[in-house]
Amino acid sequence: MDKIEKRDVIITGKAKAVYHTNQSDLVWVENLNQATAFNGKKKEHIAQKAVYTNRISALLFQYLTQQGVTNHFVQVISERESLVKKLTMAKVEVVTRNFAAGSFVKKYGIQAGQPLTPPVQEFYYKNDALDDPMLNTSQIVALNLATQSDVQTFQTQALAVNQHFQALFLQIGIQLVDFKVEFGYDDAGNILLGDELSPDNMRLIDVQTHESLDKDVFRQGTGDLTTVYAIVLERLQQVLGE
Amino acid sequence: MDKIEKRDVIITGKAKAVYHTNQSDLVWVENLNQATAFNGKKKEHIAQKAVYTNRISALLFQYLTQQGVTNHFVQVISERESLVKKLTMAKVEVVTRNFAAGSFVKKYGIQAGQPLTPPVQEFYYKNDALDDPMLNTSQIVALNLATQSDVQTFQTQALAVNQHFQALFLQIGIQLVDFKVEFGYDDAGNILLGDELSPDNMRLIDVQTHESLDKDVFRQGTGDLTTVYAIVLERLQQVLGE
Repeated sequence: MDKIEKRDVIITGKAKAVYHTNQSDLVWVENLNQATAFNGKKKEHIAQKAVYTNRISALLFQYLTQQGVTNHFVQVISERESLVKKLTMAKVEVVTRNFAAGSFVKKYGIQAGQPLTPPVQEFYYKNDALDDPMLNTSQIVALNLATQSDVQTFQTQALAVNQHFQALFLQIGIQLVDFKVEFGYDDAGNILLGDELSPDNMRLIDVQTHESLDKDVFRQGTGDLTTVYAIVLERLQQVLGE
Repeated sequence: MDKIEKRDVIITGKAKAVYHTNQSDLVWVENLNQATAFNGKKKEHIAQKAVYTNRISALLFQYLTQQGVTNHFVQVISERESLVKKLTMAKVEVVTRNFAAGSFVKKYGIQAGQPLTPPVQEFYYKNDALDDPMLNTSQIVALNLATQSDVQTFQTQALAVNQHFQALFLQIGIQLVDFKVEFGYDDAGNILLGDELSPDNMRLIDVQTHESLDKDVFRQGTGDLTTVYAIVLERLQQVLGE
């Protein structure tokens, strides 16, 4: 690969900035030392966070590639930067839940921790002005956010990620409660898993201690974010190398 | 049929009361002269309303029976009472939308009146304490509200009702914007269309004048409810007899 150069910024989000590169099909992701929650209402600078999200995300994308789940990851560039394929992101987020937690518990009056079988899958409209409302397949199609066939691909892929992640995390004593993923389209129209894979977008519970190992410690102010992200990274490195 | 006698009340709802009868598989529905909106926050006594909902509902259920859509309707007993099969109601409501209106417009930032193709179908959890949250199929199954197969039946049946109603209403110069139905199980476990079919649970627009011919005139205080229900009844009687 030719030397990749960082160019103009495309977008600066809550936890990362994305830049053009000298190659039209690749973008440069810079993880930020920032944590947000409650749709941005809680926001804090957290030193070293970017290093953990960058490393954990790289490990998880590489693991999924090995498992045959196509995704946007290309390579790590620096401690907190990675190179990924440029995608046109779908306007929906896909949430998969193995156990009841968070908003699901409040909204449906179910006990936290209750197993959900088969796993629950939810779509959310990525639209800050509308506060990211949940939507179903018929709504996604009617609103022209994706085709029926694309939605099926999102569902199938997210369930595959769920199975691979559940197996992986169980090996390192962690229960995968739920997680959010996003998909995008490359220039050829292929659907690839994109965004970031880290405890920012997952609920992870230590099987032994039942402690949260994810952004819930920040959301609820119950622990130090980088301490628990370091635990997740260390355990992943034990089984995935690096 | 033996003479049916009204017995103890089973439940008194917002717009009707339901009673046991001397036959264990039949219940006695008494329509009430009451209109409610915004989850019961707006509530009014409206003289003669029960007569219209009782007659319109009877006509629409009989029409669906002719079209092969199995339902709970048995016969009219009096001006505002009917006899229906006793069902154990599913805890979900099924909403079908042909055009954007009401909560859908606000929630998804879409223009009122925009056609939704194919029609949007939504499920709501019948749970006043939780404010009837929307849910998708995987959530219905995980919460044990219905099986996957039952949900498919609800969807198929509601779409069949939609097709028959669209055709019927178009004959009488009315556009069917959206409607809500509920299903239940008889003692043999068969799924039947239940509840009530009236402008309380539909949005109907006059094709010529674009005026609302449904409960929206009460919700929004833009017209007299019984006047528009009378128009709907009269036009239905023209094509369905009686």
